[in-house]
Amino acid sequence: MFTVESPTLHKILSTYKKVWALSYASALLDWDYETYMPRGAAKERGEVEATITAMIQELFLSNDFRRLVHRAEKEDLNDLERGIVRVLLHDLKYYERVPREVIEERERIVNRAKIAWRTAKEKADFKLFASHLQRIVDITRKIAEYLGYENHPYDALLDLYEEGLKKNDVERMFSTIRDPLRRVLREVAQEAPHPLEFKPYCREAMESLNREILDTLGFDWVHMRVDTSAHPFTEGIGLYDVRITTWYHPKDFKRSLFATIHEFGHAVYDVGSDPALWMTPVQGGVSLGVHESQSRFWENVIARTPTFVRAFFDTMTKYLPFLRRYSEEEIYTYFTWVRPQPIRVEADEVTYNFHIMLRFELEVDLLDENVTVNELPLAWNEKMEKYLGIVPKNDAEGVLQDIHWSMGSIGYFPTYSIGNILAAQIASAMEKDLDLQKAIEERRFGEILNWLRAHIHRWGRVYPPRELIRRATGEEMNPEYFVRYIRKKYARV
Amino acid sequence: MFTVESPTLHKILSTYKKVWALSYASALLDWDYETYMPRGAAKERGEVEATITAMIQELFLSNDFRRLVHRAEKEDLNDLERGIVRVLLHDLKYYERVPREVIEERERIVNRAKIAWRTAKEKADFKLFASHLQRIVDITRKIAEYLGYENHPYDALLDLYEEGLKKNDVERMFSTIRDPLRRVLREVAQEAPHPLEFKPYCREAMESLNREILDTLGFDWVHMRVDTSAHPFTEGIGLYDVRITTWYHPKDFKRSLFATIHEFGHAVYDVGSDPALWMTPVQGGVSLGVHESQSRFWENVIARTPTFVRAFFDTMTKYLPFLRRYSEEEIYTYFTWVRPQPIRVEADEVTYNFHIMLRFELEVDLLDENVTVNELPLAWNEKMEKYLGIVPKNDAEGVLQDIHWSMGSIGYFPTYSIGNILAAQIASAMEKDLDLQKAIEERRFGEILNWLRAHIHRWGRVYPPRELIRRATGEEMNPEYFVRYIRKKYARV
Repeated sequence: MFTVESPTLHKILSTYKKVWALSYASALLDWDYETYMPRGAAKERGEVEATITAMIQELFLSNDFRRLVHRAEKEDLNDLERGIVRVLLHDLKYYERVPREVIEERERIVNRAKIAWRTAKEKADFKLFASHLQRIVDITRKIAEYLGYENHPYDALLDLYEEGLKKNDVERMFSTIRDPLRRVLREVAQEAPHPLEFKPYCREAMESLNREILDTLGFDWVHMRVDTSAHPFTEGIGLYDVRITTWYHPKDFKRSLFATIHEFGHAVYDVGSDPALWMTPVQGGVSLGVHESQSRFWENVIARTPTFVRAFFDTMTKYLPFLRRYSEEEIYTYFTWVRPQPIRVEADEVTYNFHIMLRFELEVDLLDENVTVNELPLAWNEKMEKYLGIVPKNDAEGVLQDIHWSMGSIGYFPTYSIGNILAAQIASAMEKDLDLQKAIEERRFGEILNWLRAHIHRWGRVYPPRELIRRATGEEMNPEYFVRYIRKKYARV
Repeated sequence: MFTVESPTLHKILSTYKKVWALSYASALLDWDYETYMPRGAAKERGEVEATITAMIQELFLSNDFRRLVHRAEKEDLNDLERGIVRVLLHDLKYYERVPREVIEERERIVNRAKIAWRTAKEKADFKLFASHLQRIVDITRKIAEYLGYENHPYDALLDLYEEGLKKNDVERMFSTIRDPLRRVLREVAQEAPHPLEFKPYCREAMESLNREILDTLGFDWVHMRVDTSAHPFTEGIGLYDVRITTWYHPKDFKRSLFATIHEFGHAVYDVGSDPALWMTPVQGGVSLGVHESQSRFWENVIARTPTFVRAFFDTMTKYLPFLRRYSEEEIYTYFTWVRPQPIRVEADEVTYNFHIMLRFELEVDLLDENVTVNELPLAWNEKMEKYLGIVPKNDAEGVLQDIHWSMGSIGYFPTYSIGNILAAQIASAMEKDLDLQKAIEERRFGEILNWLRAHIHRWGRVYPPRELIRRATGEEMNPEYFVRYIRKKYARV
C-alpha cells in the first residue's frame, strides 16, 4: 500500500534525500548541543547550524525541485504520494511566500532576542527584553501577511506548527474546556505543596527506576537512548535513532519520573513511522499537537493513574525506599496534586491549560495591538490572577518564564493544549478496542503501544493532523473527551 | 600576517564554508558512532554519511568552484592564500583524476571488505578475507595509475596520507633506523611481560587519574571532552570542539594512561590552529605523520620518562594505591618494557617501527606482485620472525590484526613511523629553547605546549608537511634524532 510509484515523486525523493541527511545531521547537532558539547564550542556550532539550515533552504528552493513538486501536485497520486507533496508544499509555502530578506531579518532579531531574554530572565526584568519582543511581534505580523490568511493573521502562524489549525478552532476548544476546568479547579485546588515534593532521593536509584519503567513500557534500547539535560526533550534524529533526555532534581522525584515517561511518548511516536516512509518528508510526527498528545497520553492517561501506581508500587519502593512509608493512595495523591502556581512547565493537569489560554489570548492581543508590549507584564499578571488566583512574584516567574517568544515562536503554545485534549480523545477511542486499566494493571504496555502504532504512529505525516485524528478516533478533535477525563479523574463528584 | 586578501580566495572560502560545515557534521557523526549511537542505528547512519560525503564531493567538483581554484593558482598570493590553494588542489586531484565510477567501485569493495575482515578476524581465518583484499589491491593499483606518479605507484598512495612523501623517503627512513633498532632490541628485549601488567585497577580511580593528568598537561575542558570507546581516538570536530576517547581494560593501567596522553597530543594539535585559519581548508593538522608526531611526543617523549614518573608518582599512587609497593624505577621499567609480541597497537617504542616496516614492505610487494594475496599470511609470519623473532599464533594476531587494509588504506602505515621519528626530532629542536626535563619535573607543561603551538600547531596546513618541519626544526625530517633518542633511552650503553 505504501509505495511511491510516480516517476516525478521518485525524482523529488532523490533530491529530498539530501534534505533528509542534512536534517538528520542537524538533529544530532541539536542533541549534542544540549547534552555533550563542550561549552566553548557554541559560537562555532552556530556557524555550522546556520550553514546547514541555509543549505536545506537552498535545496528546497532550487527551481528544479520546486518545479517537480508543483508538477506532482497535478498528478493522480496515491495516499503516500499525496502526503509527500502536501508536506513539501506546506514547507515550501514559507520559503516561497516570505522574502528571503525577511527570513534573514527574523533570524537576526531572534538571535539577539534569545540572548536578551536570558539576561532579562536572570535579572527578572522585562524591560531588558521589551524592545526585542516588540521587534518579534512586528516581524511576525509581517510574516503572517506574507503567508496570507482568510480571517486572522494568527491563522497563518498556527498553521506553521499545527497544519490547518485556525484561531477559531483554538477559541472553540478553549471555550469548551474553560468553565468545566474552572469548576473542577475551584473544587480541588490545594494551597500548600504535597509533602512528598520535599523528599530528597538518590539520583542513581532514580536513574535505575526510570530505566526499569522505560523497559516495562517498551523502550527500544536498540534504537533509543536516555541522557540528562537542563530541560527534558526528545530528539528524533532518524527513524532508527531517537533519543530522550530527562532531569534529576535533588527532590520531588515525580518530576524526573513524569518527564521520562512524557519523553517516552514522544520517542515511540518518532520511531513508529512505517518503514516505507523512511527518508521521505512524511517520516516522523505529523504536528506538534499530535506529538504532544502522545507524550501526554503516556504521562497522564497511563502513568498518572491509581492503576499505574499499584502496578509499579513495588518497583518504586525498591529504588526509593522512603516511599515505603506512604500508601499507594498517598503516592497517587502526590502524582495528581492540583495547585495553582505560576510556572507552566510545573503545572498539573487541571491548571495547565489556563497557562496556555493566557498565552494564546495575549498573543492575539499583541498581534491585534489590543495590548502593547509594555503593558504585557501587567496583562500577564491580571490574567494569572483571573485564571489561577495567583500573581507571579516577578517577571522571571511571570511573563519571562518561557523561551518561546524569544525564539519567535508565536502561535506555538496552543499545540500544548491540543496535545492534552487529543490524549483524552485517543484514550477514549482506544478503550473501544482494549481495556486500558486492565492492560496497565497487567503491565501489558505492548498492546497499548501497538494500538497507537496502528492508528497513529505508522502513518507518519501521510495525512494532515485533522484527517489522522478522524481516522484514528472516528471524529474531529473534540474537547469534550478531555472535559470528561478531567471531571472523572479530579472532580469530587 | 594571516589575512585572505584575494577576491578569488574570498569567493572560494564562501563556497568552502559549506564543505567545512558538512565536514564538521560528518566528524560529529563519526564521534557519535563510536561513543553514544544506539546500535540499531548503524544502517541508517550509513545512508546519512554516504549522502553527506557525496554532497562534499559535489561541492568540490562543481565547475564554478574548480574554476576559481585553478584561477587562484595563477595569482600572486600570500602564504595563507597559497596554503589554501595548495590544500584544495591536493584534495581536488583525487576527484579530478580518478573517475567517479572507480571511486564508487572502491567504496562498494571497501564496504564489503570491512564486513568480511571483521568475520575473518573473529574466526582467525585469512581465507575469508583474501578475495576482498585482492580486489582492494587491484583497485588501489588502478587508482595509483589514475593519480599518476614519477617512480612508483606507491608514491601516489603515500601522497594521499602524507602530502609529498615518496616511497624512496620511506625506504631511506627505514634503512636509517633498522639496524640501530635491531641492536637495541637484541640488547634489551624481555621474554616475559612485566608483572604490573597483571594488576587489576579500579576504573573510577583510573578515570580520575586520567582527568588529573590531563588537567596538569593543559587539557582545555572548555573546548574538549573525554569519553570511552572500543579503541581510543581523537575527533577534531571543529577548531573549538575536539574530543578524545580512551579505554579501560580490567588490568595493565598503562594502556589507559598512555592512550589518554597520546590522544591529548592529537587533541591539542587540532585546537591549535591560528584563529585566522578557522573555517578554511588549512584549519587543523597538516598530515597524518605530523599528527602522530604530536601524540607520540606527549606519550613517549614526555610521559614515558623517569622525570614524568617522578613528577606524577604521588598522583598515581593516590588513585592506584597498589603502586605504593613499587618504586619510581619499577614503574618506569614497566612503562618502558620492551618485549616483542605480535600486536602493533600494543608494541613498545623499540619494536613498534618493525611492525610498520613489515607492513610497508608487504604493501609494496603486493602492488609489485612480488607477493600474492594468498601468500600474504606466510610472508607476514616470515617477516615477523625475521624482525621480532616471533610467529603469530594465528591470522587474527597476524595478518588480520589491523582494520586499515579492509578500509582500502594502503600507503597509510608509514605515517605512524614518521610520527615516531618526528617526535624525537621536534623534541631535539625544542631543547634548544627550553630544558624539557626540567619543565616536566616542575610540571610546567604550558611552556612545552606553547612551543608546539608557536612552531607547529598554529600553522595548521598552511605549509606542506616537509616545509612545516623544516621551519619548526631547522631541517628536513631526519631519522637520526630518533635513533639517538632510542639509544639514549633504551640501550644499556
